Amino acid sequence: MEQLRVDLGERSYDIKVGYDILSKVGEYLKELNLGSKVLIITNELVDSLYGREVEQAVEEAGFEVNIAKIGDGEKYKSLDTARELYDQAVEANLDRSSTIVALGGGVVGDIAGFIASTYMRGVNFVQIPTTVLSQVDSSVGGKVAVNHPQGKNLIGAFYQPKLVVADIKVLKTLEERQLKAGLAEVIKYGVIWDEEFFNFLANNRNKILGLDTNTMEYLLKRCCEIKAEVVARDERELGLRAILNYGHTIGHALEAVTDYQRFVHGEGVAIGMVAAAKLANKIGILNGTDVEKQEELIKEFGLPVSFEGLNIESIMKALAKDKKVKDGMVRFILAEEIGQVVIKSDLPHNIIREVLEELRG
Amino acid sequence: MEQLRVDLGERSYDIKVGYDILSKVGEYLKELNLGSKVLIITNELVDSLYGREVEQAVEEAGFEVNIAKIGDGEKYKSLDTARELYDQAVEANLDRSSTIVALGGGVVGDIAGFIASTYMRGVNFVQIPTTVLSQVDSSVGGKVAVNHPQGKNLIGAFYQPKLVVADIKVLKTLEERQLKAGLAEVIKYGVIWDEEFFNFLANNRNKILGLDTNTMEYLLKRCCEIKAEVVARDERELGLRAILNYGHTIGHALEAVTDYQRFVHGEGVAIGMVAAAKLANKIGILNGTDVEKQEELIKEFGLPVSFEGLNIESIMKALAKDKKVKDGMVRFILAEEIGQVVIKSDLPHNIIREVLEELRG
Repeated sequence: MEQLRVDLGERSYDIKVGYDILSKVGEYLKELNLGSKVLIITNELVDSLYGREVEQAVEEAGFEVNIAKIGDGEKYKSLDTARELYDQAVEANLDRSSTIVALGGGVVGDIAGFIASTYMRGVNFVQIPTTVLSQVDSSVGGKVAVNHPQGKNLIGAFYQPKLVVADIKVLKTLEERQLKAGLAEVIKYGVIWDEEFFNFLANNRNKILGLDTNTMEYLLKRCCEIKAEVVARDERELGLRAILNYGHTIGHALEAVTDYQRFVHGEGVAIGMVAAAKLANKIGILNGTDVEKQEELIKEFGLPVSFEGLNIESIMKALAKDKKVKDGMVRFILAEEIGQVVIKSDLPHNIIREVLEELRG
Repeated sequence: MEQLRVDLGERSYDIKVGYDILSKVGEYLKELNLGSKVLIITNELVDSLYGREVEQAVEEAGFEVNIAKIGDGEKYKSLDTARELYDQAVEANLDRSSTIVALGGGVVGDIAGFIASTYMRGVNFVQIPTTVLSQVDSSVGGKVAVNHPQGKNLIGAFYQPKLVVADIKVLKTLEERQLKAGLAEVIKYGVIWDEEFFNFLANNRNKILGLDTNTMEYLLKRCCEIKAEVVARDERELGLRAILNYGHTIGHALEAVTDYQRFVHGEGVAIGMVAAAKLANKIGILNGTDVEKQEELIKEFGLPVSFEGLNIESIMKALAKDKKVKDGMVRFILAEEIGQVVIKSDLPHNIIREVLEELRG
């Protein structure tokens, strides 16, 4: 079992990465000196696979456990679901010293974190991410949220967990599409921060897709390290942290215009990274080889590099509603080379349109 | 015009207290270096009285202004209203650099602050409190929230404003009941922190109820000073800050069991302070004279010191749901003398029942 410390002063916390560690969650919670009540927020599928194991581990450590289940999918990351969860938190009689545990992927983590951040103005929050995506991304960094019909994650907060437990074993039950989508965020870390890691991914495609334990331990730990380093330097996303949004500007817009139905998050990011690479190349800061390398690696992991049939102007409108817009300018993260990115918010709209047209094929 | 600094590190902000200063709000905002968009959240009544003056002032300072109006009353401090406000924030195209201005009393301030704290994970927030209660209490300290059917302020956050503007002139249009209710919180500051201020209130009843400018300037400034001092020492309510809840434990329960229809907040607090005084006396930490002094001052300002016809067990149940409960123990703030309080969470339930029975008359 590996352990990382995310250094955020009084909000610092540990990330535990290991194989078959769900049964130890109760012990981990006990070490944190929390109140007696725990509400596990999960979804039907994850509950059926891992609910009992976690519930038992937490109960055996002496906590009073309740379980709240939400629907499976991005559309349940809504204010309506939040309202139901608030009701269940009240029913479970949670108090300020209680703990909300998110057991699931990004949707569960984001909404459970939002509930934890706002219930009684904030209760303890622990994450047990069960997808690659949530293990390397949404479980680190304190961004919690629900969606608004007009935009993903439009309602949320910055709220740090007390602990993150990433178990590699649970990835074995992950469906292939979700596994691949998670790897889009993994590739992202290579592009924004670490060329060597990018090359590691290119050289270990089969081991990664086959979930080889040692390979995955290194991969998850390295992603968490990179994210933790970035977040520790910029907790509230005022500057540096924005680089974590590489591929997300257009990715989010694609998700939004398809009502979060067509692409899973990582697929949006995959296409968004290709878009960002092409944009960077068009404005002359990234060479063609590095564009191709990215596109190739993304393809190798079975991820989409283009989309069909969407209206370009709808995507442009969705971009204008993005949280990253400041006074009308859309902000992009662009690579100068693999391992090194910059933030640009002065891209001409016609260049963005041009790239979108190319991606539509 | 007086100015106070609430010292919270990078979240520090100013409180401006003065007579007829609404017209200067635009200038004040300009000094804060904010984005170009402002959404003023207010209610129908306050909008009809002061909406145009503030709107004009902010527009003249170069901002693009939208106004969102909510219903008047505690029942509109709900998730339903929050949802409508999120929609209006989207329609106004607010971005992360935008500002939400709360123009109104505690309800408007609390919900507008909750929207500001969660919209895009937090936008700028400015408060223009228009009641005594919100000027001395809810506008200072960063507590923002909406109600849940099962409890007041059950959903919320800690979120600091960038600025608070308290204009004494607006109090002239405040209805008498609200004015008096606000004075309950004013009395609270005397009991918890400053015996001299308590005596000042006792000696200046007529000037205060008559809204004499100099008297009110001193009164508002002193309350904000006390609260700012307490909040600066304990921003996230981990310890000391709890003393600001003097009178609120039973006060909140009374509001809850009457569905926030019968008592305005300050009236609940008034009865709650009498209850706290009697509890303190019963457990032998406060002398009878100091109980009487409090009860008398509360009466003098036309506030209730008892209630009729409520079910004691319902109140006990509401107490058990209070945010201040930790592992089943209800927390009370009790005075040892006027100007000095302590926190107690080990009061026997039968003593609480006894006091409630007495208060029911």
